[in-house]
Amino acid sequence: MTTPPRSDRRGSRNRPGSRGAAPGAGGPVGGAALWARAPGPAPGQLLGLTVVATTGAWLGLYRGGIAWESALQFNVHPLCMVIGLVFLQGDALLVYRVFRNEAKRTTKVLHGLLHVFAFIIALVGLVAVFDYHRKNGYADLYSLHSWCGILVFVLYFVQWLVGFSFFLFPGASFSLRSRYRPQHIFFGATIFLLSLGTALLGLKEALLFKLGTKYSTFEPEGVLANVLGLLLASFGVAVLYILTRGDWKRPPQAEEQALSMDFKTLTEGDSPSSQ
Amino acid sequence: MTTPPRSDRRGSRNRPGSRGAAPGAGGPVGGAALWARAPGPAPGQLLGLTVVATTGAWLGLYRGGIAWESALQFNVHPLCMVIGLVFLQGDALLVYRVFRNEAKRTTKVLHGLLHVFAFIIALVGLVAVFDYHRKNGYADLYSLHSWCGILVFVLYFVQWLVGFSFFLFPGASFSLRSRYRPQHIFFGATIFLLSLGTALLGLKEALLFKLGTKYSTFEPEGVLANVLGLLLASFGVAVLYILTRGDWKRPPQAEEQALSMDFKTLTEGDSPSSQ
Repeated sequence: MTTPPRSDRRGSRNRPGSRGAAPGAGGPVGGAALWARAPGPAPGQLLGLTVVATTGAWLGLYRGGIAWESALQFNVHPLCMVIGLVFLQGDALLVYRVFRNEAKRTTKVLHGLLHVFAFIIALVGLVAVFDYHRKNGYADLYSLHSWCGILVFVLYFVQWLVGFSFFLFPGASFSLRSRYRPQHIFFGATIFLLSLGTALLGLKEALLFKLGTKYSTFEPEGVLANVLGLLLASFGVAVLYILTRGDWKRPPQAEEQALSMDFKTLTEGDSPSSQ
Repeated sequence: MTTPPRSDRRGSRNRPGSRGAAPGAGGPVGGAALWARAPGPAPGQLLGLTVVATTGAWLGLYRGGIAWESALQFNVHPLCMVIGLVFLQGDALLVYRVFRNEAKRTTKVLHGLLHVFAFIIALVGLVAVFDYHRKNGYADLYSLHSWCGILVFVLYFVQWLVGFSFFLFPGASFSLRSRYRPQHIFFGATIFLLSLGTALLGLKEALLFKLGTKYSTFEPEGVLANVLGLLLASFGVAVLYILTRGDWKRPPQAEEQALSMDFKTLTEGDSPSSQ
């Protein structure tokens, strides 16, 4: 991982969206230069993998593992949701930071594809819980977890569709893209945080339904699930931190700077006639 | 509420931290001008008041109200936490947007004071639940809600102390303040979101402990509490949205622009010698 040239980094600081850039720290001897040389988003991804592994450990050690055609079908739900709407969604948000020196088109396609994988895996998780409820005669959609879950799932789908129409479908103008971009970033981060909140509610629900008052005796499952909850929250903080740091933002690439239709140039010199 | 002069708004867009500014929308006929004329943070605060009112309605209608010296002591906990760590904390984050045309010093003192009130009210809520547990022989600090709660409370206190030392205590240099400022904003928003997540976990815990399997029969209390949960999440989204919009950010005031030690000028023209 290389430090981008100084001019690039300064460009990145002044770009709309550089909320987290440490002001006055962009010089070659400033703190920002150290940040830019730091491993960057990697620890965040390691945390994401730890969340998936801990979810697997919880389901394996205390819930009998997973299977589609048995009482274990329920367990498909938390595993798929954590892989899809936590780990993969978080990773999709981070691709512009992890691959910040790659071509924009490639990064954008990867961002869209990771969201597709996340959506499909979450859909499997959703089908699993509805099918499990149907087979066992349980009521659907009564809890706060389920209300938030459906809301997040619909918002995620809408966000993907709108994002695709603006950024991957060739019709939208640069001006339109630049106006929608901050909204896309804000709602993307918001849906990710809502996903995490929903996961925490689901975890708590699963714990209380099974452990009941035994939860207060520091049962090993309760302690492990609490640790999983803290890991989920930490992953959210880490992704948000990486997303908002100016020095991990994608600097403009040489081939993009050469184009007069360059996104950044256009948005900074925007005029009504450019629409 | 008046629209700040165009030069001020442009200054605001280029300021470090203007993450949410809609790029290319800053012209007098752009969408940003419409946003700047919109009622701004007021609907967010109305949502915060609705959260407090709904919490009061839930505790009044289904939990017997509040009192210190009885079984109702527990109910002091959710009420104080929602008033302190949700409503007042959210409002404290928004003062720089609500009073964006007032003197900076006044706004800063109000920001610090609101956090003090929030902390004191939350402390009362914390004492209430520990005292209630002690009187009834219940275990402490076993649940994910309690772990998150203690973490949030400690982080909130540390953030206040560090914020006070940097921004209200006269010792810190402008350069040091400008370097810490983005961290203060990021961790402030993070602690607020963690507070909301913790509130959702607590709400779910209170519901499941009382309703148990009756929760799935769409009991009125369950439905009201679910609505409260959605309101809490919506308040979080609203505060985050208001915080990140560039056009609701505080424009530099005339008296500050006249000073050569102006914060913005200094941070943009920062050099190691200014420390």
